[in-house]
Amino acid sequence: MLNFESDYLEGAHEKILQRMLATNEEKLSGYGRDKYSASAVEKIRQACLCPEADVQFIAGGTMTNALVIASLLKKIEGVIAPETGHITTHETGAIEFSGHKVLSLPQTNGKISAQQIRDYLEQFWADGNREFMVFPGMVYLSHPTEYGTLYSKSELKNISEVCREYAIPLFLDGARLGYGLASPESDLTLPLIAEYCDVFYIGGTKVGALLGEAIVFTKNNQPEYFIAHMKQQGALLAKGRLLGLQFDTLFTDQLYFEISQQAIAMAQRLKEGLLAKNYRFYLDSPTNQQFVILANDQMEELKKSVAFSFWEKYDDQHTVVRFATSWATKQTEIDELLALL
Amino acid sequence: MLNFESDYLEGAHEKILQRMLATNEEKLSGYGRDKYSASAVEKIRQACLCPEADVQFIAGGTMTNALVIASLLKKIEGVIAPETGHITTHETGAIEFSGHKVLSLPQTNGKISAQQIRDYLEQFWADGNREFMVFPGMVYLSHPTEYGTLYSKSELKNISEVCREYAIPLFLDGARLGYGLASPESDLTLPLIAEYCDVFYIGGTKVGALLGEAIVFTKNNQPEYFIAHMKQQGALLAKGRLLGLQFDTLFTDQLYFEISQQAIAMAQRLKEGLLAKNYRFYLDSPTNQQFVILANDQMEELKKSVAFSFWEKYDDQHTVVRFATSWATKQTEIDELLALL
Amino acid sequence: MLNFESDYLEGAHEKILQRMLATNEEKLSGYGRDKYSASAVEKIRQACLCPEADVQFIAGGTMTNALVIASLLKKIEGVIAPETGHITTHETGAIEFSGHKVLSLPQTNGKISAQQIRDYLEQFWADGNREFMVFPGMVYLSHPTEYGTLYSKSELKNISEVCREYAIPLFLDGARLGYGLASPESDLTLPLIAEYCDVFYIGGTKVGALLGEAIVFTKNNQPEYFIAHMKQQGALLAKGRLLGLQFDTLFTDQLYFEISQQAIAMAQRLKEGLLAKNYRFYLDSPTNQQFVILANDQMEELKKSVAFSFWEKYDDQHTVVRFATSWATKQTEIDELLALL
Amino acid sequence: MLNFESDYLEGAHEKILQRMLATNEEKLSGYGRDKYSASAVEKIRQACLCPEADVQFIAGGTMTNALVIASLLKKIEGVIAPETGHITTHETGAIEFSGHKVLSLPQTNGKISAQQIRDYLEQFWADGNREFMVFPGMVYLSHPTEYGTLYSKSELKNISEVCREYAIPLFLDGARLGYGLASPESDLTLPLIAEYCDVFYIGGTKVGALLGEAIVFTKNNQPEYFIAHMKQQGALLAKGRLLGLQFDTLFTDQLYFEISQQAIAMAQRLKEGLLAKNYRFYLDSPTNQQFVILANDQMEELKKSVAFSFWEKYDDQHTVVRFATSWATKQTEIDELLALL
Repeated sequence: MLNFESDYLEGAHEKILQRMLATNEEKLSGYGRDKYSASAVEKIRQACLCPEADVQFIAGGTMTNALVIASLLKKIEGVIAPETGHITTHETGAIEFSGHKVLSLPQTNGKISAQQIRDYLEQFWADGNREFMVFPGMVYLSHPTEYGTLYSKSELKNISEVCREYAIPLFLDGARLGYGLASPESDLTLPLIAEYCDVFYIGGTKVGALLGEAIVFTKNNQPEYFIAHMKQQGALLAKGRLLGLQFDTLFTDQLYFEISQQAIAMAQRLKEGLLAKNYRFYLDSPTNQQFVILANDQMEELKKSVAFSFWEKYDDQHTVVRFATSWATKQTEIDELLALL
Repeated sequence: MLNFESDYLEGAHEKILQRMLATNEEKLSGYGRDKYSASAVEKIRQACLCPEADVQFIAGGTMTNALVIASLLKKIEGVIAPETGHITTHETGAIEFSGHKVLSLPQTNGKISAQQIRDYLEQFWADGNREFMVFPGMVYLSHPTEYGTLYSKSELKNISEVCREYAIPLFLDGARLGYGLASPESDLTLPLIAEYCDVFYIGGTKVGALLGEAIVFTKNNQPEYFIAHMKQQGALLAKGRLLGLQFDTLFTDQLYFEISQQAIAMAQRLKEGLLAKNYRFYLDSPTNQQFVILANDQMEELKKSVAFSFWEKYDDQHTVVRFATSWATKQTEIDELLALL
Repeated sequence: MLNFESDYLEGAHEKILQRMLATNEEKLSGYGRDKYSASAVEKIRQACLCPEADVQFIAGGTMTNALVIASLLKKIEGVIAPETGHITTHETGAIEFSGHKVLSLPQTNGKISAQQIRDYLEQFWADGNREFMVFPGMVYLSHPTEYGTLYSKSELKNISEVCREYAIPLFLDGARLGYGLASPESDLTLPLIAEYCDVFYIGGTKVGALLGEAIVFTKNNQPEYFIAHMKQQGALLAKGRLLGLQFDTLFTDQLYFEISQQAIAMAQRLKEGLLAKNYRFYLDSPTNQQFVILANDQMEELKKSVAFSFWEKYDDQHTVVRFATSWATKQTEIDELLALL
Repeated sequence: MLNFESDYLEGAHEKILQRMLATNEEKLSGYGRDKYSASAVEKIRQACLCPEADVQFIAGGTMTNALVIASLLKKIEGVIAPETGHITTHETGAIEFSGHKVLSLPQTNGKISAQQIRDYLEQFWADGNREFMVFPGMVYLSHPTEYGTLYSKSELKNISEVCREYAIPLFLDGARLGYGLASPESDLTLPLIAEYCDVFYIGGTKVGALLGEAIVFTKNNQPEYFIAHMKQQGALLAKGRLLGLQFDTLFTDQLYFEISQQAIAMAQRLKEGLLAKNYRFYLDSPTNQQFVILANDQMEELKKSVAFSFWEKYDDQHTVVRFATSWATKQTEIDELLALL
């Protein structure tokens, strides 16, 4: 059975497993104090052209979001996010669990604009009763978004400028960052993201790793005693080597970028095939998630031989479904899927 | 250089790595809905003789403690624990982060007694002003304790009876559970622990796994929608297979118990060797952590060729140090260490 | 200078002050265990035709909202509220501070409908990924709303039915409840509100008291050990008599209703006077808050002799302002205001 | 029936009630922006010889403690307090509710010493694993303590010096501060307390007010946007005048100090009377709470005509009870009590 349900269906890239085998018996200090973690930090700094970045490795995305946001915000602050942001909708209130409000803004194709953010901040600071409202203390974006869309260089630059003007950090959730960077429609690079954002993370779980996200604090702005914050929120792994070694591998010889391109090539092949067959798309996604409008009876038929995600009802006769490719998707799988459609 | 610093120095048992390699390309559903997790759950139920247990896999111990405690306690409740309990001292206030107080009781060799717990509960419920105090809503024990000591069958049974009398759950932190069960001085078994405790966890991180702890709710008492609690606290891994597969391996052919015995055998060899050389122990630990009193100058000398843990100052001339063995410790390492002492 | 800025400009109704003087030297037990609190509870039960209601007195509205919501919700639950609800916008994230998300719905004239709530709940429970979302665990309404508008009997009944169908409590914030009940356009009574809601509060701070709100749990649903919740959130006053005595006075000889009618009569007089002068209203409020559209230059001129609230910009030339009457507003004040307009 | 149960049995000092009557009809801005609050702030600054102090008025003591501590601590920090401190034992975990741990130290007569605090801080900062522990971010003392005892000038000065050396604020809970200052055994004054402490509060609820505590930030260290913190924790009263006016009255013509002396004079009269009759005291309290050891049968007999507090069991035949005097206690009450003993 074909499976395009998500981009975390397989284990890890084989190079990662090979290195785990090769280093398995080494006795290494815990909590990220091992040499592989140190090496991964250094390689990520170089890839970001950000030699002073602080880099930390965390097991998963929701934990990463909760940790970054809770450790950076003051108690009376909340985080601005699109209404469709992962933290807004699909983390069971992990941000609120830590005491902070998600200040949601209307989205367009999963994105918010510099102007929306500016308007919100202006209005907040002009309000004489602002002490009765949650203070906007951070901006959160996903890139790619939950709809597979991308911020352009100028869009991100503009958002960054608003954040700096109001002295609040810009945090970019890069759970699928590789797939964004590998898209032919992207004019952003890792160094540009490091420049525009105050903190972001490089997703590993969905891009070749068993698990792991790499937080990058780009502006000497890592909260003091960050390890204590990690421990307090249950985010500090005893065998930090497991995360360090994986990122060390992914950032050796451009592996992270190379495998991301495979996912994008496969998504493009799927997209072109579907367009050729006159399928309609819910929106134009340049990354590894493709949102297609299927007639309901066709969708039911397809379910028998392909796993994919229900996204939302389109109308009484149609449904939006999602096909996700990944670093592990093979061309034959795409071709088999296209043959079925 | 010899290294007895902790019991999480290596990667994973080789059988685990082999199965990861063998299953790596399989496409499996996320969030613990894969077949290996299901199989691991079933094997743990059998090992516990608790066919209706709910079992969940979590990345690490602090997260597990925070999740179990926060999801089971009501808002006005706290958790009774020894003053030396891991949650009391070494989790950067993870329990308080979730809004709950640790109600600490004085310890003896890392343990608290049924009588102490009963006295505390009796006094609380007899106090006319109890609504001004945190309600005791759970009892937390570590087994083995942070000092390597063990509760006996009758001690645990008595504590369990007090908890049932007062209708509060008994939670056992088994980060090193394998090493407790493998100790020749233990009269407790996994089924007995499942019987006496309402919830406990079987530690994997320190006993052969890359990472992972298996929570076992033994009394149909898993909080409703527990997956939502896991997601809210950032504890739900996308690739749940990683945890499921490891526990499935550890609970195949008694691997978990077999490798635990190796650690205990090595600790016993070390202990006997040290006793033969007239070393003094800080306390009598029957498990894989041995606490030895060294003269300060000898300790400094030893540091040059062996890594171990500083535990605490004993007196002006002496220090308590800890040597930890693990599933991966080899007999030659013990013999080399003894030769140096 | 005239002042219509808010409905909490004066101290307390004189009958309250007189009773405070008369009872000042009595030695009474603290924390609400005094006879005046007991008497107030009994009178409120009678006024609600709800003889088994649990009634608690709290100093202010934000504390009341935070306490009711935090004590009733489970950790994975949030509260449904209009996007303009007080808890959504003007309590500096007090609900999130306690770990819970406000699930905001679009409003019309400050209100949400039974259909909106039903749709939200249906969609939530139909979602296969609902454990990744905050569980809707309560509905919060303000009555009158922040815009002075009222729910009709059938609207509230319908909302109540949806809540019961989904087994979640309906909580009504009655900070200005007296003004809602006294409005000629209201077809709701205190007993009907007690019937439809699971918990609500009767506002005192804005209706004749120095401070104080009376929470009414109508369905034997007060959280167990509620005094402990109050203490934990800092809501338990030592001299509970201060709150009890005030509500005992307000609920003697219909005082609460009588003084509420004065505010409504004054608001009606203002409304009619403004309509006669062809002023435009932002919306049609049947209670003590009137939202009027003023030309900006007129507004600036008026500020010299009258205090009122800026509400929001209407267009480049006009602004929405609020005039609030209260139990203490005198007819001469309204007439003086009308003379200036 | 005589009543010595607590120091918050009556309403307010008559001068407070008189001024409430006299100003009741004035229309004043809410949330502490009224002229009486401003005047009270100024008078407290003068009484503290601290012209730049920030002063805020809060309804009650538990709320004040929770607010000061939560607004000043960073997320990974806790507060050092005596094991018998009010926040440690009798606030239903209000500090933990806000996410912070109370780091309790052993007490002597309700007090902790500069040396204990220094040892704790030294040990914490020397610990290589300190990021696994809660960071000590504040010291909390009660003065008078929960046992009625007092810190001497040199004790408080020494504690203050330790706090400054480690750059953490010293917070003094002055719920009964007046009774401490009025004690003949006190060598502390309000200006000295303002000098040694970074923040403290002047209790009103137990010293002549209906309700109210005045927080004094002495070192330009009030958290930014403190009103927002107050609102978020439900601590901001709409009619702030109620608190401002009371403190303005208490700090006019030394009223606060004068009425405190009455409580102390009465406590001294009681103490001397009991000593003359050879009663034993549990400890030597120089303030308004007297802890007396009574034979159980005598205690039972006394209950018939006097209300007092059970404190704790002394031995099988004896009990420690507490008699509290207050600003409102009359000499005849003491004499009647002594006649019964």
